[in-house]
Amino acid sequence: MIDKLRPNLEIDNLDIDILSILMNDATTAYTEIAKELIVSGGTIHVRMKKMQDLGIIKGSNLIVDAQKVGYDICAFLGIYLEKGSIYHDAVNELKKIKEIVELHYTTGGYSMFAKIICRDTNHLRYVLNDEIQAVSGIQRTETFISLEESIKRQITLK
Amino acid sequence: MIDKLRPNLEIDNLDIDILSILMNDATTAYTEIAKELIVSGGTIHVRMKKMQDLGIIKGSNLIVDAQKVGYDICAFLGIYLEKGSIYHDAVNELKKIKEIVELHYTTGGYSMFAKIICRDTNHLRYVLNDEIQAVSGIQRTETFISLEESIKRQITLK
Amino acid sequence: MIDKLRPNLEIDNLDIDILSILMNDATTAYTEIAKELIVSGGTIHVRMKKMQDLGIIKGSNLIVDAQKVGYDICAFLGIYLEKGSIYHDAVNELKKIKEIVELHYTTGGYSMFAKIICRDTNHLRYVLNDEIQAVSGIQRTETFISLEESIKRQITLK
Amino acid sequence: MIDKLRPNLEIDNLDIDILSILMNDATTAYTEIAKELIVSGGTIHVRMKKMQDLGIIKGSNLIVDAQKVGYDICAFLGIYLEKGSIYHDAVNELKKIKEIVELHYTTGGYSMFAKIICRDTNHLRYVLNDEIQAVSGIQRTETFISLEESIKRQITLK
Amino acid sequence: MIDKLRPNLEIDNLDIDILSILMNDATTAYTEIAKELIVSGGTIHVRMKKMQDLGIIKGSNLIVDAQKVGYDICAFLGIYLEKGSIYHDAVNELKKIKEIVELHYTTGGYSMFAKIICRDTNHLRYVLNDEIQAVSGIQRTETFISLEESIKRQITLK
Amino acid sequence: MIDKLRPNLEIDNLDIDILSILMNDATTAYTEIAKELIVSGGTIHVRMKKMQDLGIIKGSNLIVDAQKVGYDICAFLGIYLEKGSIYHDAVNELKKIKEIVELHYTTGGYSMFAKIICRDTNHLRYVLNDEIQAVSGIQRTETFISLEESIKRQITLK
Amino acid sequence: MIDKLRPNLEIDNLDIDILSILMNDATTAYTEIAKELIVSGGTIHVRMKKMQDLGIIKGSNLIVDAQKVGYDICAFLGIYLEKGSIYHDAVNELKKIKEIVELHYTTGGYSMFAKIICRDTNHLRYVLNDEIQAVSGIQRTETFISLEESIKRQITLK
Amino acid sequence: MIDKLRPNLEIDNLDIDILSILMNDATTAYTEIAKELIVSGGTIHVRMKKMQDLGIIKGSNLIVDAQKVGYDICAFLGIYLEKGSIYHDAVNELKKIKEIVELHYTTGGYSMFAKIICRDTNHLRYVLNDEIQAVSGIQRTETFISLEESIKRQITLK
Repeated sequence: MIDKLRPNLEIDNLDIDILSILMNDATTAYTEIAKELIVSGGTIHVRMKKMQDLGIIKGSNLIVDAQKVGYDICAFLGIYLEKGSIYHDAVNELKKIKEIVELHYTTGGYSMFAKIICRDTNHLRYVLNDEIQAVSGIQRTETFISLEESIKRQITLK
Repeated sequence: MIDKLRPNLEIDNLDIDILSILMNDATTAYTEIAKELIVSGGTIHVRMKKMQDLGIIKGSNLIVDAQKVGYDICAFLGIYLEKGSIYHDAVNELKKIKEIVELHYTTGGYSMFAKIICRDTNHLRYVLNDEIQAVSGIQRTETFISLEESIKRQITLK
Repeated sequence: MIDKLRPNLEIDNLDIDILSILMNDATTAYTEIAKELIVSGGTIHVRMKKMQDLGIIKGSNLIVDAQKVGYDICAFLGIYLEKGSIYHDAVNELKKIKEIVELHYTTGGYSMFAKIICRDTNHLRYVLNDEIQAVSGIQRTETFISLEESIKRQITLK
Repeated sequence: MIDKLRPNLEIDNLDIDILSILMNDATTAYTEIAKELIVSGGTIHVRMKKMQDLGIIKGSNLIVDAQKVGYDICAFLGIYLEKGSIYHDAVNELKKIKEIVELHYTTGGYSMFAKIICRDTNHLRYVLNDEIQAVSGIQRTETFISLEESIKRQITLK
Repeated sequence: MIDKLRPNLEIDNLDIDILSILMNDATTAYTEIAKELIVSGGTIHVRMKKMQDLGIIKGSNLIVDAQKVGYDICAFLGIYLEKGSIYHDAVNELKKIKEIVELHYTTGGYSMFAKIICRDTNHLRYVLNDEIQAVSGIQRTETFISLEESIKRQITLK
Repeated sequence: MIDKLRPNLEIDNLDIDILSILMNDATTAYTEIAKELIVSGGTIHVRMKKMQDLGIIKGSNLIVDAQKVGYDICAFLGIYLEKGSIYHDAVNELKKIKEIVELHYTTGGYSMFAKIICRDTNHLRYVLNDEIQAVSGIQRTETFISLEESIKRQITLK
Repeated sequence: MIDKLRPNLEIDNLDIDILSILMNDATTAYTEIAKELIVSGGTIHVRMKKMQDLGIIKGSNLIVDAQKVGYDICAFLGIYLEKGSIYHDAVNELKKIKEIVELHYTTGGYSMFAKIICRDTNHLRYVLNDEIQAVSGIQRTETFISLEESIKRQITLK
Repeated sequence: MIDKLRPNLEIDNLDIDILSILMNDATTAYTEIAKELIVSGGTIHVRMKKMQDLGIIKGSNLIVDAQKVGYDICAFLGIYLEKGSIYHDAVNELKKIKEIVELHYTTGGYSMFAKIICRDTNHLRYVLNDEIQAVSGIQRTETFISLEESIKRQITLK
C-alpha cells in the first residue's frame, strides 16, 4: 500500500473510527459506539458535534433496494453541450429532473456525466427524450445501462 | 409526467411515505415519523419490519464529505476486458480494491464501469496502474475525473 | 438456461404452441395446427381470436428474397440529431422515406438507429444524401452496409 | 425519385402486385388477390409457383407483438472479433443462441452486427455475458438498446 | 478465388488484354500490342475506338514521383459537414482547391473523404485551415498523413 | 496563396510545363508538346530523358472507367495490426492481394490505410474476410465505401 | 539508425556541440564550454552571436518543479472548434489564458491541442469551464490529466 | 480570478519574483535581479541556494528553434498498451528512444501520451514503426502532428 498521509485534516483516529462505524450503519446508538471504541458516550457526542460543525458529516441515508420499489433501470449518461459556456444554466435545469441522482462536470470527452434511476425502459425514454434533451443547450447524450451492479459500498476510511 | 404504475409491488403509499422520510435522514425517530404521517408508532415499527424482511430496506449510510476526510478525487472508469468470458473472475478481483465504490456491468462500449474515490492524483495513479490494471484479463481502462459534483441525491419515491 | 418466467402474461402453453407454428409459416391451415397439437379446430379459432383481440398477433408477412427482387443493399444507419428535442418531428419525416424499414430510438451514441433497403449503391447515396440528410434537424449519419446476412429468424417462444 | 431500373429480373409488374399484397398480409386468399388484380385465380397460382421455384418467396411469418409475449428488450450489438479469420466459426456458434434474430457481416468498425430479443435486462445480461461473450474469438461487444421502435415495415416494391 | 462473372459488359477478353497492356504503359505503340496479342494493328485501332466511344477509356496519365517535384505530403482527410444537405455546394467549393486530388461521398462516420497532396506541413496547414475549413458548411476535418506509400497500382483486370 | 518555393529541385519551369501536358494526356506526341511550348522537339527528348533518369517520371497509366469494366465498389480500409512490429510482414502479404490498389502507413488511429477496388459487395466481403483478414497479424479492419467519386485528378504543378 | 542528413543548415558540428552543452545547462560559462571543446573562448562568443542572429537560439528557461511551487495538475486538452474558420481568432483569445503553456494546430481529430498547468482540480475546472469554454467558437474540449511525467527532456542534437 | 492560495509552500513572494525573472531568462545575472527587486545580491544567492536545495529549481535550458536545427516535425502520440501491467517496463524501454521528449501516464483513453521531435516524415515513420512499436507490450499508437505551435511558454507564477 502507498503511504496514507492525511495532511492538515482536523480529525484524528478516533473520529475516523466513529465515522467508519456509522458509515456502515447510520442508526448505530452512540452508547454502542462508545462501548466498541472503549470511550465514554459523551466523547462520541462531542466528536459527532465537531464533525457536524466542520461539515464532515452531511446527513444520513436509508439504503433502499431500488428494484424492489419499482425502479428497475440504472443508467449512466454522457452529456454533450452545444457550447461549454451554458454549463451553469444546464445544471440548474437538470436539477429539476428528479430521476437524475448524480451529476458531474468531468474531464474526458463528455461535458457532463449523470447517473439516472428509472422505472423501466419506457420511463427511461421519457426522461431522456422529453426531459433531458429538452433542456436548452444539450446537444446529445450517450446512454449506457447498468445490467448488474457488482459493487456498491462506501469508501473505507481506515 | 408519465403515469406511475407500480404493478405487483408489495408496498403501499404509507410505506413509501415512511421510506421517503428515512431516505433523507436515516436517523429520524419512529415517533417523529408517526407524528408526521398521523399514524401510531406501532404502525411504523410493523411497516419497517415488513420492509426489512422483504429486503426493501438494506441498511443506512452516514453521508460524509469525502474531500473533508482527505479523499479529493472522484473518478469514473470504463474498463475493457481482454475477453468477456473472464467477467466473473475480474469482478472478484476488483472487489478486493477498496477504492472502487461502485462497479457495473453495462451496455455500450465498456465491459464494466466503475466509480473510484482516491486521496489525490498520486493515489489515483497507484490504484489505476498497480491495482486495477494488474487484475488478470483487464486490457485497458478509460478514466474521467469528476471536477465538480453538481447533483448527489436519492431517488424521489413520490 | 436461466429460468423462463412469464409473469402476468395472458397466454398459456397452447397459445405459445400455436404462435410457434404460425411464426414459421403464417399460412398453415388451422386444421393442420389442430392435428399437430391434438386439439379441436375450434380451439385454434378461439385462441387465435383471443390473441388477435389482445393485440398479440399483429398480422403476417410474406418473406421475399430482397436481392432477387432487385434490392441488393441492406444498410444500418446511426443518426445524430442537431438537438434531441426535434426527435418526434424527425420520426414523422423519416416515416415518409419508404426505404427505411426499421427505426429505433436507442441508448448508446446515436440519437436514432435505422435499417434501410436499397437497390444499389447509387440508390443508397440518393436515399442518404437527398432524402434522409434533407430532413430538418438531422446533423449527420453513420452508415454501415451488410455484406452478408448470416442469421435472420423469428424469436423462439419455447 | 431516381429512376427505378430492375435489369435482368425474372418478374413483371403482375408478380410485383401479387407480392405487394401478400407482403402486407400473407394469409390473403388467392381468389381475393385475383379479384383485386382483375386476373384469374389460376394466374395467381402459376405466378406464385414460379416465384417459389425461383426462390423469390421464402416463406411467411406471423407478426407477434414481442412485448406482449414477454420479450421486452430489443437490442443491437456490435461485435468485435479477436481476429477476422475466425468469422465463419463464430457465426456457427452464434447460430446456436436463439435470442439472436439477425446477424450481419458489416462494413464500418464492427466485425459483425446482431439484433437480439430478450425478456428483460437480466436475460440480456445472461445472453451477453454467459452466451455471446463465451463464444471463442469474440473479444468484446458494444450494445445499444431500443427504447422505442418508431418504424417497422417491409420494403415497398412499387 | 470467387467466380469472376462480368455480366452485361460490352467487352471481351481481347479488349481486356489490350486494356491490361495500356494500363501499365499508356504509351505502348499499337503495333507492339498487336504483335504481343497476335492480332492485326487494325484490330487494336477498332477496339480502342470502341472502348473510347463507350467511355471505358477516359484518358491517360503520366505518373510522376510527387516528392521529386516538391510535393512531400500526402494526406487523407475525413470531412464532417454541419448538415448533410449542403453536400452538393460543398463539393463545388472543394473542386476549386487544387491540392485535393480525390473526393468521395462515403459510408461510415465521415460526410466526405478526400486525398490531398501538399508541398510540406506549412502548405498542409494553409490548405486545411485557410482553404478547406473556410468552405461554408464544413464543420471540422480529421487528417491523417501518409508516412509511406507501400502499394500504388492499377486494378488487375485479368 | 502561400509562396511556392521549390528549393533544391533539379527541374526548371520548362520541365514543369512538359510534365503538366503529359500528366493530363500521357500519349501527347513530343512534336505537339514542342510546338505548344515553342521549343525544339529535341529539347523535349532531352528533358524527358533527364526526368526519366532522375526517377521523376515513373511511367504512364491508361485511365479506365472501373465501373464500366465491372468493378462497381471502391472502398477505403483502416487496418489495425495486433502489434506494430509485424508491419513489414503484413505489407508483403497485402501486396499479394491484387484488389488493394493503394496502401499507406499513416498517422492517426489506423496502423495502415488501404484503397480497394471490387466487383460487387460479395466480392468485397470475400476480399475483406477471406483475403485481408486472413493475413497474419491483422486484428480488424474498418471499411467505408465510396458512394460517389466527386473529384479524381492529378496534382497541378503550376 | 537512419542516416542523419542535415541539408542546408547553417551550423556545423562545433555549433551543435555548443548547443548541446547549453541545452542541458543554460548557465554554463563560455570559458568552461571553450575548455571542454578545446577551442578559444572567443570562438564560443562568435558562434553564439551567429546562432542568436540566425534565430537558432531563442532564449533560456529556468526549469522549476511545478508541483513544488503549487501547480499540481498538468493536463492535455483536445479542442473542437464550431467552425475551422475561427481558428485565428480563437488562438488570440487563448493566448490571454496564462494557464495554457502550449497550443498546437494538429492533424487528427482535434482542431487544436493544448497543454495546461493548474494548481488543483478546482483551478482546472475554473480554467476549463469559465475561461477556455467561454472563448467564442470553442464547441467542446476533451481533457486528459497527466498522473505521472515519466520523461521530460530536450532533443538530443548529436 | 479564483483565489490563489498556496498552502504549505516553503517560498515567499521574493522567491517567486526571483523565479519569474529567471524562468524568462535563465542567464540573468544575480546583480541585475537584485537591482530589479531592490534587495542585496547576497539575498538572491541565499534564496537561490534554498530553492536549489529544496528541489524547486531543477536546472536550466537553452531554448533552441527545433526547425532551424533540422527538426521539422513535432508530433503527439497516444500509446495503447496490450496490458496495463507492463507500464513500468514500457517506460524504461521508451526512455532509450531519444526522439521522445515527454512521456506521461494519463487519464482518458490512452495508456500513455508522448511528445516526439523528428527531422522529417521519414524519420517519424522510422521512430514510430521501428523504434516505438518494436517495444514489447505496445499494441498500437495514435499520432497527431503539430502543424503550427501557436503558444509555447512557461507558467506565470504571479
